[in-house]
Amino acid sequence: MRTPVFALSAFFIFTGAAYGVSAPISEATEECIACHVSVSPGIVAGWKKSRHARVIPMEALKKPRLERRVSADTVPGELAQTAVGCAECHTMNPAKHKDTFEHQGYEVHIVVTPEDCATCHTTEANQYAQNIMSHAYGNLKNNPVYHNLADSVNGVQSFEDMKTTLRPPDPETEAESCYYCHGTVVDVKGKSTRETVMGEMDFPVLSGWPNQGVGRINPDGSKGSCTACHTRHQFSIEMARKPHTCSECHKGPDVPAYKVYEVSKHGNVYSSLGKEWDFQPVPWVVGRDFTAPTCATCHASLTVNEEGEVVAERTHRMNDRLPWRIMGLIYAHPHPKSPDTTVIKNKSGLPLPTELTGEPVAEYLIDPKEQEKRRNAMHKVCLSCHGYEWVEGHWKRFENTLRTTNEMTLTATKMMLTAWEKGVARGLAQNDSIFNEAFEKKWAEQWLFFANSTRFASAMAGADYGVFANGRWYLSKNIQEMADWLEFKLKGIQQENKQ
Amino acid sequence: MRTPVFALSAFFIFTGAAYGVSAPISEATEECIACHVSVSPGIVAGWKKSRHARVIPMEALKKPRLERRVSADTVPGELAQTAVGCAECHTMNPAKHKDTFEHQGYEVHIVVTPEDCATCHTTEANQYAQNIMSHAYGNLKNNPVYHNLADSVNGVQSFEDMKTTLRPPDPETEAESCYYCHGTVVDVKGKSTRETVMGEMDFPVLSGWPNQGVGRINPDGSKGSCTACHTRHQFSIEMARKPHTCSECHKGPDVPAYKVYEVSKHGNVYSSLGKEWDFQPVPWVVGRDFTAPTCATCHASLTVNEEGEVVAERTHRMNDRLPWRIMGLIYAHPHPKSPDTTVIKNKSGLPLPTELTGEPVAEYLIDPKEQEKRRNAMHKVCLSCHGYEWVEGHWKRFENTLRTTNEMTLTATKMMLTAWEKGVARGLAQNDSIFNEAFEKKWAEQWLFFANSTRFASAMAGADYGVFANGRWYLSKNIQEMADWLEFKLKGIQQENKQ
Amino acid sequence: MRTPVFALSAFFIFTGAAYGVSAPISEATEECIACHVSVSPGIVAGWKKSRHARVIPMEALKKPRLERRVSADTVPGELAQTAVGCAECHTMNPAKHKDTFEHQGYEVHIVVTPEDCATCHTTEANQYAQNIMSHAYGNLKNNPVYHNLADSVNGVQSFEDMKTTLRPPDPETEAESCYYCHGTVVDVKGKSTRETVMGEMDFPVLSGWPNQGVGRINPDGSKGSCTACHTRHQFSIEMARKPHTCSECHKGPDVPAYKVYEVSKHGNVYSSLGKEWDFQPVPWVVGRDFTAPTCATCHASLTVNEEGEVVAERTHRMNDRLPWRIMGLIYAHPHPKSPDTTVIKNKSGLPLPTELTGEPVAEYLIDPKEQEKRRNAMHKVCLSCHGYEWVEGHWKRFENTLRTTNEMTLTATKMMLTAWEKGVARGLAQNDSIFNEAFEKKWAEQWLFFANSTRFASAMAGADYGVFANGRWYLSKNIQEMADWLEFKLKGIQQENKQ
Repeated sequence: MRTPVFALSAFFIFTGAAYGVSAPISEATEECIACHVSVSPGIVAGWKKSRHARVIPMEALKKPRLERRVSADTVPGELAQTAVGCAECHTMNPAKHKDTFEHQGYEVHIVVTPEDCATCHTTEANQYAQNIMSHAYGNLKNNPVYHNLADSVNGVQSFEDMKTTLRPPDPETEAESCYYCHGTVVDVKGKSTRETVMGEMDFPVLSGWPNQGVGRINPDGSKGSCTACHTRHQFSIEMARKPHTCSECHKGPDVPAYKVYEVSKHGNVYSSLGKEWDFQPVPWVVGRDFTAPTCATCHASLTVNEEGEVVAERTHRMNDRLPWRIMGLIYAHPHPKSPDTTVIKNKSGLPLPTELTGEPVAEYLIDPKEQEKRRNAMHKVCLSCHGYEWVEGHWKRFENTLRTTNEMTLTATKMMLTAWEKGVARGLAQNDSIFNEAFEKKWAEQWLFFANSTRFASAMAGADYGVFANGRWYLSKNIQEMADWLEFKLKGIQQENKQ
Repeated sequence: MRTPVFALSAFFIFTGAAYGVSAPISEATEECIACHVSVSPGIVAGWKKSRHARVIPMEALKKPRLERRVSADTVPGELAQTAVGCAECHTMNPAKHKDTFEHQGYEVHIVVTPEDCATCHTTEANQYAQNIMSHAYGNLKNNPVYHNLADSVNGVQSFEDMKTTLRPPDPETEAESCYYCHGTVVDVKGKSTRETVMGEMDFPVLSGWPNQGVGRINPDGSKGSCTACHTRHQFSIEMARKPHTCSECHKGPDVPAYKVYEVSKHGNVYSSLGKEWDFQPVPWVVGRDFTAPTCATCHASLTVNEEGEVVAERTHRMNDRLPWRIMGLIYAHPHPKSPDTTVIKNKSGLPLPTELTGEPVAEYLIDPKEQEKRRNAMHKVCLSCHGYEWVEGHWKRFENTLRTTNEMTLTATKMMLTAWEKGVARGLAQNDSIFNEAFEKKWAEQWLFFANSTRFASAMAGADYGVFANGRWYLSKNIQEMADWLEFKLKGIQQENKQ
Repeated sequence: MRTPVFALSAFFIFTGAAYGVSAPISEATEECIACHVSVSPGIVAGWKKSRHARVIPMEALKKPRLERRVSADTVPGELAQTAVGCAECHTMNPAKHKDTFEHQGYEVHIVVTPEDCATCHTTEANQYAQNIMSHAYGNLKNNPVYHNLADSVNGVQSFEDMKTTLRPPDPETEAESCYYCHGTVVDVKGKSTRETVMGEMDFPVLSGWPNQGVGRINPDGSKGSCTACHTRHQFSIEMARKPHTCSECHKGPDVPAYKVYEVSKHGNVYSSLGKEWDFQPVPWVVGRDFTAPTCATCHASLTVNEEGEVVAERTHRMNDRLPWRIMGLIYAHPHPKSPDTTVIKNKSGLPLPTELTGEPVAEYLIDPKEQEKRRNAMHKVCLSCHGYEWVEGHWKRFENTLRTTNEMTLTATKMMLTAWEKGVARGLAQNDSIFNEAFEKKWAEQWLFFANSTRFASAMAGADYGVFANGRWYLSKNIQEMADWLEFKLKGIQQENKQ
């Protein structure tokens, strides 16, 4: 264990050289590192590899607009002069943070939040607050239909007297399943005292911890977690631009974006040749820095051509280039207007953007004009590498697939409605969950897995995934199996009635 | 937008230096680039990274036989003197191309075809024409059994009056599912006029576009798409040699070659150490350039040992080292003789290489002598890194697995035949599709997914995939589920008859 | 074919320079290479890239303790002086090897075993012998319950007279399915004479060959295969430390460690940034050499912080940091004490570490104290990069998930027991396999696939895999489908009884 150096130093700002860091670091950060280099060596070493350890904000602010990684107009005096180190973030806005605690003479908080990051990355934090992902916690927790779906998946079932019963999931299960990605509520539940290598210390006890979900409710009241994509203390733009980051939450059959990307030509080029690409530059030059898009290229990044002309502006409102929402809900539909989707009500009073029979609930959804704007923003990205006819042809297929997969979902839904009506399954009319029976789960798979997988395969040209892997084969087979089951069940009722 | 440079130049051939290209480029290509560097920057930048932009054919022709990347004896005069740029390919054979149109004073066509590429890569184009993949469009479209399978997967089903009906798939759906890989028919449907940054222009309207399927029917009448593997304007041999390229079409449960490779020792070595390998050299030196095979190594590439002795000659007839066809059809069988498999008829008159009960239709299939020849060609590749006993032991297991998986398929087929015979499913005798009912789809999964997955796992030693992932577990479980269903259905009929 | 060089040499030890190898090589190895550079070029080239070809044991022995890659105190005289080449390993302990044969004047054996490797890597071989993996062959083959499971998966089923029958699997099938990973028995079955490029030669005929399974029974009586992870002739520590190696056996739904890793933050960091990491150093420095763990980091490697303090000692007894066994068996339970699990008997006399209803058979399992020790060893690894609260919170969720997934398994087991009791399925009481019927296979999937997938997702924070990919969605759905089937079957019996 090293002796903390601060006691020996007469200067407020240290050179970082002692730690292999090129930027000057603050006295407070110096103190953090002195112990944590031994207590949590991976964190310190990760940070040392970050741009935060190499460039001070004052320098970052001087870059021309397109090269700026810091969007704030100014950064408060002292912060601008040193590396962005431990103390800079973990002591930011202490009064707002319920998780602030006294630690070695500093007011430290555990959870760094978008509001903390906004000090330098203002535009990104503001955009992200309008991104539907920032509302991922509430959009699940406060939507009774979806909350019920989650319970039916995560609850514990028992079997007694030939019947199954469901116990709702405990908080630990919820935190490591749905809310792992959607975000937990991180709140302070008390204090605990613990023996450490530095003697006895107090620490806050947090609920929902650990978590780095995109819609995390933070102890300062803000929403989201920048570290979901800009991972932990290295904050690597390379990592945020690589598809593996998105895959953490967007790989399962409910949202198989990464799996589709992997089998697409784009994904193939990335896997085969990406090792030669440059994932660092801002702005990101199409064709020079990379020769096929990653998730970030199409959905978020600032890209330019070699002449320096902007292809797409950076956005952290990830739906800016998305006219349609193709997953998670029963039918594909225009994107919702508000990132808070709990405001939506359909004619049946359900918090869904379409009726059960597919008609969009237009007032809560973006209009054709906004769709056109977003479609054009995306097309501009495509046109960097593809001819006009190519892009139009691709898009025509995609929108056709939205219609056919919606039709295939409607077919399954009609069977579901028949089962409820005929009493061989119990639904809303019986005040029962619509996700707890085997037949209802088959219906849910039709849209939650197969229809949306087919749409992703179409959207991103990963055809192989959309046919046999998890797409049309299952979409078509599922309907026949549902028909089989329905026929059997209704015959069974007839038999019973006869006897 | 740059001013086209050609007006300023007195020379026919430009130095490519202005664009960072080391080979001289033609005036025509110079003109293309002048606009397209801004209009489609990704394409130009991709091409600049290609060997086509670095080496002129005249130089390529001078290499010793084993190092040649150009198989033509000669390349016509002017073409031999410049980089292979935009104009060289997109104005090749204009009279043959239905998609030729007037563009800025040139006769340009959109779709570059194997026949265009054959100008320099003659042997490869000729071999590819005999590759079963080049017939992938017709082999699906013109085989009534398989066309029917495709319809049952891609069609839209409805549910009315307790019955399902199937509407055949529309062309957009077909183009983005089966024919995405198999290839579409790209034909000229008319002209459209469009406002561009260069003013109003005319362009041909193409059917089936975009597409880069291996059996694409091109506007010049040729078959296939070199860009399926030699991707777009970078034409990287590195990419063609990497397994991700094959995975675009060979990853789903119907042909899980890539998934099996991934969990094999070969795939592991590639994933772990491949970053240090050299994927560029021709010929490709076993052990020096790479220490485990990729798909290309075993199936296509010219490989030599460090002494320069040939291990395997290059082939673009991908079945040259394959004695057996292990996927796609109901039973594993010797490879068909002709790449056009629509010529095949079994005793029942079906266009299948085996009877429904598994017996091969020998006259259309390669004979044991040809099988032996292909087996030896593959063994020679194996023996580069494995002892004789190792290779023999591996192969013995593989051929045993062909027999056992055929047996497991026959078992399922007998159940299927029983269902048709007893009238609990409707098949050929009832003039009905053999793929549209739930039970038929279970039968199809037995061979289309599980038997062939088991075979791939055996062939490429990716054991993990062949047991629980998608192999023998499902092969054995599916039979028990089919037995359950059959018993239930037949009992149901008995019940009805009793009453 | 080169002339063997040894005849020309007056020295016992050759410089390896002629083969591009920096260490001196023995005369015997020189002879091997002289032919095999042409006969099996990939093997020779692979070896030339190995550390065995660069460093002689005498030098390796001089390293400070933490940097040692050789754990033997001494290495016998001649061996210590040359590169570890072909002859050094393939002529080691000839008398013990049943596969020893005369080859070009040497007593050569084919299969290099842990006992051979123990000459230099003594500690690792000893630890590995206590690793449950080294007993993988016997633990499957000699456990009647598991052997029966394997037969039901790998056997060939027939369908005659409306009934299915099962033929036990043949040895070829067994060797390429379960025993591919678990290990085969490699034994000498005779000799064969074969024409080679060097004239006629004799070779031993081996059963179970090829194989590199972790529990292989070797011709010298030893157990295991170092090459399972330290692949073949390159013996790369980089490869052993990369997750792809583990994925060869730990990827399927029965043990989806790799799939979970891939979608975890750890896996994402590895995929995104791992190309810059250093996988060679011993000891392995947390944060400097890598910024996220691979499988090896947590389970096997010697790791230190930048101050040189040990985070975790190296172990080849892979369960040293594992308090719980979470897969393969019906319920999660404390790890077994002995690597030979065939000694275990539960109250029903079954060779299982829990009762069918989940209670652990404590006497054969590690006690809470040993669990605590292993938990602490693992926590120390976590704490390199995570705070104490983070680690505790994570672990609390994990142990909660062991309980809930055990509950969900018990629910399915109660249904299974009901089916056996009511006679709608045939189990132990009927002296029938408990894995051969469709309903039994559904029950097996509950624990073998879904419960353990959920546990892995929890253990390694790959949440996405544990919800919809192959976890809780299926865990909950499977119970409802089992309930449906049970209800139908029992109603069917009632119907029959009524008539």
